[in-house]
Amino acid sequence: MSFSAPFPPIRSVAVLGAAGVVGASWGALFAHYGLEVRAQDPAPGLEERVRSFAARAEPALRALAPGAGPAGRLTFHSNPAEAAAGADWAQECAPERVDVKRALLAELDRAMSPGAIIASSTSALLRSDIAADCACHPERVIVAHPFNPPHLLPLVELVGPASDAPAVLRAAEWLRGLGKHPVILRREAVGHIANRLNSSIYREAVSLVEQGIASVEDVDAAMVHGPGARWAVLGPHLLYHLGGGPGGIRHYLAHLGPSQVRRWADLRTPELTEELQARVIEGVEEAARGRTIEGLEAERDAAILALLLARRGGT
Amino acid sequence: MSFSAPFPPIRSVAVLGAAGVVGASWGALFAHYGLEVRAQDPAPGLEERVRSFAARAEPALRALAPGAGPAGRLTFHSNPAEAAAGADWAQECAPERVDVKRALLAELDRAMSPGAIIASSTSALLRSDIAADCACHPERVIVAHPFNPPHLLPLVELVGPASDAPAVLRAAEWLRGLGKHPVILRREAVGHIANRLNSSIYREAVSLVEQGIASVEDVDAAMVHGPGARWAVLGPHLLYHLGGGPGGIRHYLAHLGPSQVRRWADLRTPELTEELQARVIEGVEEAARGRTIEGLEAERDAAILALLLARRGGT
Repeated sequence: MSFSAPFPPIRSVAVLGAAGVVGASWGALFAHYGLEVRAQDPAPGLEERVRSFAARAEPALRALAPGAGPAGRLTFHSNPAEAAAGADWAQECAPERVDVKRALLAELDRAMSPGAIIASSTSALLRSDIAADCACHPERVIVAHPFNPPHLLPLVELVGPASDAPAVLRAAEWLRGLGKHPVILRREAVGHIANRLNSSIYREAVSLVEQGIASVEDVDAAMVHGPGARWAVLGPHLLYHLGGGPGGIRHYLAHLGPSQVRRWADLRTPELTEELQARVIEGVEEAARGRTIEGLEAERDAAILALLLARRGGT
Repeated sequence: MSFSAPFPPIRSVAVLGAAGVVGASWGALFAHYGLEVRAQDPAPGLEERVRSFAARAEPALRALAPGAGPAGRLTFHSNPAEAAAGADWAQECAPERVDVKRALLAELDRAMSPGAIIASSTSALLRSDIAADCACHPERVIVAHPFNPPHLLPLVELVGPASDAPAVLRAAEWLRGLGKHPVILRREAVGHIANRLNSSIYREAVSLVEQGIASVEDVDAAMVHGPGARWAVLGPHLLYHLGGGPGGIRHYLAHLGPSQVRRWADLRTPELTEELQARVIEGVEEAARGRTIEGLEAERDAAILALLLARRGGT
């Protein structure tokens, strides 16, 4: 396949918004793989945040990718264009607001050489909206949405000007080299794939509480000990293929398709009233059992790491 | 807490519909824990199916519960009442039809002593519908819905005449002793908790294909490498608690609640036309890449086992 633009080897990465959770996690990943990380953030304490996140993330990264070599150099910048100039890849992790991202991407587009790729971490905005002001080389402006925490979870969702655009294909190839599992969307959509699945589940998780079917804690327990333990292994399409028995998905849809349709009709959209929010908050606080956000994050990350290592050995 | 009926120790379990996938898996679990299993099924080849499933399941069960002692005795029956008479627990795994289950549960209710618990594996029917003809001791007739495969996945959803009914509390206690994670529903609902979550996801998984956003294979990949890997670790409620940063779920709902509501409004219910079914079938066959249903099941079960063992060590 031929690329319309020659993409140079990627040695230096600018992370814009590097003091936030997503930016700091991307930064830790890039540095672990020996890339120069040019970290930028208007927030105070940038260097301390980036360095302490990278130090906390390093044991997990070493377990996942022990052969990645010496960590890359970190530099710190307050100005996006200065961080981006000379970098081969920009990972934009600014606040999730269309005006903020649109202006920042345009600034990066002006500052970076034509062969550099500019990737947005946006979780739900459309590429066409945030790239709208990129007048120089918009074809290399893409979405590369990681799933939190980016240094651990393999998924990166890619959206380009087309699903076979050179920048997207190049991004997929490069991200695979960083241990990621890139998925290229056929067309852009609010929430891409993963956050649409996420919203579908949250809608029902809130609805179950609203309808008095189960407590917040029991909804979460049902997920972790039931469907969640399967979705870490196979996706919904292949699972319903197995649900059809020897006849597979063809048998499933022919015989149980109508029952799915009936169940879809039974799913509700809860109204997120003050009262319902209060019930959800109370239930979450009960389920957290005094564990802090930081403690829960550490629990989550340790368990995700164990799962990723087990999956690697297990299949 | 006091029980209205004295529940004897559970030593003998009748499995009705033991030749099916769910029944055979329950049977393997019960036998591994040293219980006498009284297997019944009108299908031919009952004994062969139950024994071969148990033999295949045994290595995983030994890994999960090495100290469970010598396997229980298996006996085989063609008649439900004969299998159930003298058993302390009945696990009904008949076809998912309300008329079939209603008649069978009534037969079991007549055949079994008042202290025996009668549990239905129904995945989506309501307890009140299937227990409607139990005239003897309906208070001990419950739903105990496992998540496939039952011998591996910990979740069992319990529905009783009330969420604090003695039979349900006793069932939860007993199932915990078999390594299960029972969840008691506050009220009955079509699909209980897990299959409502399942339907929510499948609806969106099919919708993503219908709208041309992603291929069947990429939807599954996004799940396994993204949200699925988190839902095996924490449920949606606690994950959104972490999504709120230091302010937790309170901050999340206050600031991002409106964006969830917008995303819920953007979720569609696809029409499961012949044409869409054909696209899903084609995509699934592509994603299966020539692997048989049996091969995929073995892959799924090996990966679930690795995950359960890792989770046990990891948290």
